[in-house]
Amino acid sequence: MLYEINEKALKLESEGKKIIRLNLGDPDMATPPEIVEAAYASMKAGNTKYSSSYGEKRLREKIAEVHGVKAENVVITPGSKWAIFSTMFLTLKNGGNVIIPTPYWTAYDLIAKSFGAQTKLLKTELKDEWKIDLDKLDSLTDKDTKMIILNNPNNPTSKVMDTETLDGVVEIANKKGVTILSDEVYGAISFAKTKSILDYDGGCKHILSNGFSKTFTMTGWRIGYLIANKMLIDNITKLNQITFNNVPVFIQDAALKGLELHQKIASAIKAKYKQRADLASAKLSAAGFKFTKPDAPFYVFPKLDGLDSEKFTLELLDKGVAVAPGTSFGDYREHFRISLTAPDDQIETALDKIVEAAK
Amino acid sequence: MLYEINEKALKLESEGKKIIRLNLGDPDMATPPEIVEAAYASMKAGNTKYSSSYGEKRLREKIAEVHGVKAENVVITPGSKWAIFSTMFLTLKNGGNVIIPTPYWTAYDLIAKSFGAQTKLLKTELKDEWKIDLDKLDSLTDKDTKMIILNNPNNPTSKVMDTETLDGVVEIANKKGVTILSDEVYGAISFAKTKSILDYDGGCKHILSNGFSKTFTMTGWRIGYLIANKMLIDNITKLNQITFNNVPVFIQDAALKGLELHQKIASAIKAKYKQRADLASAKLSAAGFKFTKPDAPFYVFPKLDGLDSEKFTLELLDKGVAVAPGTSFGDYREHFRISLTAPDDQIETALDKIVEAAK
Repeated sequence: MLYEINEKALKLESEGKKIIRLNLGDPDMATPPEIVEAAYASMKAGNTKYSSSYGEKRLREKIAEVHGVKAENVVITPGSKWAIFSTMFLTLKNGGNVIIPTPYWTAYDLIAKSFGAQTKLLKTELKDEWKIDLDKLDSLTDKDTKMIILNNPNNPTSKVMDTETLDGVVEIANKKGVTILSDEVYGAISFAKTKSILDYDGGCKHILSNGFSKTFTMTGWRIGYLIANKMLIDNITKLNQITFNNVPVFIQDAALKGLELHQKIASAIKAKYKQRADLASAKLSAAGFKFTKPDAPFYVFPKLDGLDSEKFTLELLDKGVAVAPGTSFGDYREHFRISLTAPDDQIETALDKIVEAAK
Repeated sequence: MLYEINEKALKLESEGKKIIRLNLGDPDMATPPEIVEAAYASMKAGNTKYSSSYGEKRLREKIAEVHGVKAENVVITPGSKWAIFSTMFLTLKNGGNVIIPTPYWTAYDLIAKSFGAQTKLLKTELKDEWKIDLDKLDSLTDKDTKMIILNNPNNPTSKVMDTETLDGVVEIANKKGVTILSDEVYGAISFAKTKSILDYDGGCKHILSNGFSKTFTMTGWRIGYLIANKMLIDNITKLNQITFNNVPVFIQDAALKGLELHQKIASAIKAKYKQRADLASAKLSAAGFKFTKPDAPFYVFPKLDGLDSEKFTLELLDKGVAVAPGTSFGDYREHFRISLTAPDDQIETALDKIVEAAK
């Protein structure tokens, strides 16, 4: 229902209705001007032609340096979504199953279903602070399991996995010969220390997907990347050649500028979202909602006993606030997801409306 | 071998070697400055966020106006390649076959194979002026045929289908309930009058894919579109949501500017490529190559009796000229494809080297 809510919100806006949009992880801040200027300079320099489906060498090398891998282990994608789609498609199109802990980002499940792959959902719960039960994971992993997807920090809970649990997941995956795809798109702006899947081996045994959207406020630019073994990178590149061909080079140059300014941009974003997370936590706690306090931008995933979040979300949209129902993230009817991605005053107004509507 | 040649050419260039690249349909001219400025203005105006997976309303409406359809029949894609991939994926992923006349654009066959769809190739030949044999098409179309792909004007021959043949193909498709996907990406800059698949019915019974790359020298911007019935448009939009999400809005605004300046830009491009096609035709004819004179940009597909075009292409690349072997377009070992997409003096040099190498 996540995408339907968004299209409905866009439609209401096009009809002139004012909607506070807390339904997507799309930051309200503008893309930093240095990044915009870098794109413009690159366009004017003529970087407007077809290019390599691997991505530009200069960007792959910079990303490789950031993550301590080789450039041959990096492919540039139109958003981290394509990094995830292409990896799942190539790994699962001929059968097998994928284990997805819930609550999950809606796209994982929709992607698997789009080519008929079997998904096995592994439920985690608020009362366990969203920890994966390793025994359950072990018994769910069978001979047809090709992949485990981690989202760390997690969307929608903004929870960072503790090291012990992550160690345990990697151990199970290695023992059973299953690949982990770790979506770490919120990792670089996390408030808490986040261990990366790449910390486990230098040889890209597992897979990292990441993007520029969240760290650099570049959601609409559609640029991300995948780090994996060279064979998968080569196969994704072949898929890129027959689908979108390449991310525009001027967008890759804009992303490169972002990486060069990483420290400055990421700290400002972190500080802003920490402040918003604190505000939301205070208001929601006071109103009796239950949740884990965010370890990272942008989300809170509160629970209210007895809530029907689909009904609640639609009613709230009519009152001018868009959030996402918990059912979009798995079996979480009593939860809903708030994205703290609007100007501060709007967030405050929206939180008040949410508290009011939930009474 | 088309993509391998390109990656090899890029590699040779990165090693400092000078390559005249006539292997891709990537115009040497820069994107018109008005289009670059429109993108920059849109970026600065903050159009850098997630947006609808259908594409922007203003662009869909303009495209609908150009083609005489409704905006609901239009979806914006990252290049016409994605329009084609997504259509074929949704139509053929659960089985069935697709008929592809040859010579064909490499991507059609690679796309079908990427999800295991069966392709039935229908060979056309230079001696018949590349006309489709309607009886052969009729007998090739069976109960499992889901789609016929037309590429009109054709890549690699630059031949425009004559009206009688196109009428015949449509009649067979309608009789047998098969959908035609007509890739008309060279249509707007054709030298000869080109009938569109949309001329056959107002209700989008068949499917048109098109792009901005060729008409507006925007290859590297990755923007195209599909015109089809609303149900397919809705389903492609759902696939867009889980793959790349949306074409950057500032790129859509750049494309819109292109459409506004269509007359001016397209006539300049047509004139330039007509002149190059005449030059190439004269030089190649004089040297004994056989081919049909181009009806459209950008290609010539000459034949030399007894030629092994794969060997020839690799040797030519070592001499600094990249072209594409005929085998990349089907069973055409004696042909190769020249893209007239380099500055005039380079084309002249390259043609001389080609003539020399073929002796």
